[in-house]
Amino acid sequence: MAKAGGPFKTPPSGTLPLLGANSGSDVREGVTVPMPSKRSHIPAFEVMRITDEIARRRAGGHDVVSLCAGEPSARPVPGTLKPAGYTGPLGTMPLREAIAGHYRDWYDLEVDPAAVAVTTGSSGAFQLVFLAAFDPGDRVALASPGYPAYRNILTALGVQVVEIPTGPETRYQPTRELLDAAVEQHGSLAGLIIASPANPTGTMLQRGELARLAAWCRRGGVRLISDEIYHGITFPAPGSPDPRGVSVLSAEPEAIVINSFSKYWGMTGWRLGWAILPPDLLAPMEALASNFALSPPAPAQELALTAFTPETYAERDGIVANFARARELILAAAPELQWGTAAPSDGAFYYYSELGPQLERFSNSVDYARALLEQANVAIVPGVDFDPVAGTRAVRLSYAAGESAVVEALERIIRFQNAG
Amino acid sequence: MAKAGGPFKTPPSGTLPLLGANSGSDVREGVTVPMPSKRSHIPAFEVMRITDEIARRRAGGHDVVSLCAGEPSARPVPGTLKPAGYTGPLGTMPLREAIAGHYRDWYDLEVDPAAVAVTTGSSGAFQLVFLAAFDPGDRVALASPGYPAYRNILTALGVQVVEIPTGPETRYQPTRELLDAAVEQHGSLAGLIIASPANPTGTMLQRGELARLAAWCRRGGVRLISDEIYHGITFPAPGSPDPRGVSVLSAEPEAIVINSFSKYWGMTGWRLGWAILPPDLLAPMEALASNFALSPPAPAQELALTAFTPETYAERDGIVANFARARELILAAAPELQWGTAAPSDGAFYYYSELGPQLERFSNSVDYARALLEQANVAIVPGVDFDPVAGTRAVRLSYAAGESAVVEALERIIRFQNAG
Repeated sequence: MAKAGGPFKTPPSGTLPLLGANSGSDVREGVTVPMPSKRSHIPAFEVMRITDEIARRRAGGHDVVSLCAGEPSARPVPGTLKPAGYTGPLGTMPLREAIAGHYRDWYDLEVDPAAVAVTTGSSGAFQLVFLAAFDPGDRVALASPGYPAYRNILTALGVQVVEIPTGPETRYQPTRELLDAAVEQHGSLAGLIIASPANPTGTMLQRGELARLAAWCRRGGVRLISDEIYHGITFPAPGSPDPRGVSVLSAEPEAIVINSFSKYWGMTGWRLGWAILPPDLLAPMEALASNFALSPPAPAQELALTAFTPETYAERDGIVANFARARELILAAAPELQWGTAAPSDGAFYYYSELGPQLERFSNSVDYARALLEQANVAIVPGVDFDPVAGTRAVRLSYAAGESAVVEALERIIRFQNAG
Repeated sequence: MAKAGGPFKTPPSGTLPLLGANSGSDVREGVTVPMPSKRSHIPAFEVMRITDEIARRRAGGHDVVSLCAGEPSARPVPGTLKPAGYTGPLGTMPLREAIAGHYRDWYDLEVDPAAVAVTTGSSGAFQLVFLAAFDPGDRVALASPGYPAYRNILTALGVQVVEIPTGPETRYQPTRELLDAAVEQHGSLAGLIIASPANPTGTMLQRGELARLAAWCRRGGVRLISDEIYHGITFPAPGSPDPRGVSVLSAEPEAIVINSFSKYWGMTGWRLGWAILPPDLLAPMEALASNFALSPPAPAQELALTAFTPETYAERDGIVANFARARELILAAAPELQWGTAAPSDGAFYYYSELGPQLERFSNSVDYARALLEQANVAIVPGVDFDPVAGTRAVRLSYAAGESAVVEALERIIRFQNAG
């Protein structure tokens, strides 16, 4: 009795699935609806789907003997107490359920655990989501300055990046007017990536702004991808609405959320993140993940089960309070730094600032950052990483290292500049 | 004083690097030389390169304060003792050195640690290597039956897969004659993927066969990618040469090796592997890895440092001895199983066999595997995963689970068949 959705598919006829039958975009009732990419029409790696089915059968009380995965059951190299085997390609169901619960707790949103894909960091989510949603030649818009990996992954995957130049006048966020102008200049878009709080600027989209962008995307059949990795690392004024950040799902249930355990939960090196997907992208995502990644890291998934308790939230909020103090230190030191305009950040642990008067001595932000590292042993990031054009004049400081590192770095920076 | 190769690049002129100037392939002294892909011409994510430079400076005794990465220094979620931060995009230098040392110990080969890229499993290596080496439309050959993710990742990345149908007459491995025929039929190749021991058949390439394939590739300017993930899981006759497997680097120093800590070292769920790269692919690989992955998992990298000691090798060889006993159990049970021809495996922990008489009752391997799981709670993999055509008649058993699982599974399989 084969269940629908079980791991065993009818054998293919000897060719790979035909491409092009069901991709690109479709028009329903006058509205353009995005479709999964053509290139995501690959078969799932059945071994990894069977791994999932075994877990389900065992959870249902079946005593399954698996000669399925190429996975030694013996203890791995010394230093680990027990084997950590592959999980299903989209992660363990307990973790997917725990993530869905987080959306109830923080955002009062219902998320189907089956729509949650656990990934190898947000990086793993971006590459798989881009493959699932976009074909070569598709156009995807994003704000500049922005996280460079969006641009670079899309480019390597053949997607045309449409950069939306932003500045202080829109708090470094895209607007409908900027998107209209981009479409006018470049043609229709297949996707839009937004980030709130954004990297490198730390600025956020308020609920109304997010709703307007979502409506614009829905009207145009544009996939909306929301990077919410810095949610929870926010510095709201007392009584602010949405103090953790607004999830795009509150405005657009068909949007794609990308998030990670690296920032608020501090698990950078463990490489664990997640995506929340609309129904049409679930099967493409599973097929891609089962081939490109097999499964996300298992020990990290086990650890992450502890992420969503009141105790953990309280502990993490204590760390965010430390970031807030580190941020205040930088803001207080700004006059003495003698840099230019800084982005009006509301969250993330970044301070993105023009170098202003410093550019009289250093020809650009790269030279400044290089000299600072070599002469004062302080590492910061030149803005060109985030904005190839205006970033020549700006730098990003991360205060994720906390108060004491910031105190020491500020002293060194000021000494370095005064010694010049 | 900027060092060559340091993390800070001169700022770009405002456009992404021009594509097409230095890619595809080139002809030098009458020999076609493969070049990095066009699509790998993306900028590195500078933050991750600076992370590497900070590690180098700290190793050199510098007291660096880093406001560089967005990486909390506080303890992550409960359950971990200390933060595990990002490493460099190609892994930590101690681990890259340890991997290079492994090639001295096992193969008597000198490998430059800088040519070793630590990756998120062999999966992470495949996707990045394919992106670095091949552009959309390039043709890459591989044996069928074979590991399905090769085919599926290449297809999703727009690379044209040329399947080389293999059978018992070449022990399921490609030969120069088969490759000549493939070129005749499909046109010139950009790459060839080989695997020894292979998945799902477990067959191996001997030193002379490997050298002939390598010479064929060199003559045609074809990138040779060797999947050596099952090295060490081998069942050699006493006195056999190359008992661990032959590394492709002994035949072709410019070949690409892909390997992993998942099989011989049993670290599947930790997601850690590596690639060894020719010089021209190092910079593309670093650029791709820094954007697509940021860094491989850090706790796994720390654990893997213990992989290359005499004690660990001895322990792992004990586990391989268990696989060997599990294999003998299956071979001894073969007559009673009443299946068809099995591949003459020399390694890996797989038994790939035609179902033979069982196909009188079950229309194909998918139906057989489905019924076996549902009625007898034994999970095996239908051959269609590895060969969409002939795989309808074959199945793969993994005996990685060890002797006791194999004993139980064989009993259940025979009972299941007899009950039919």
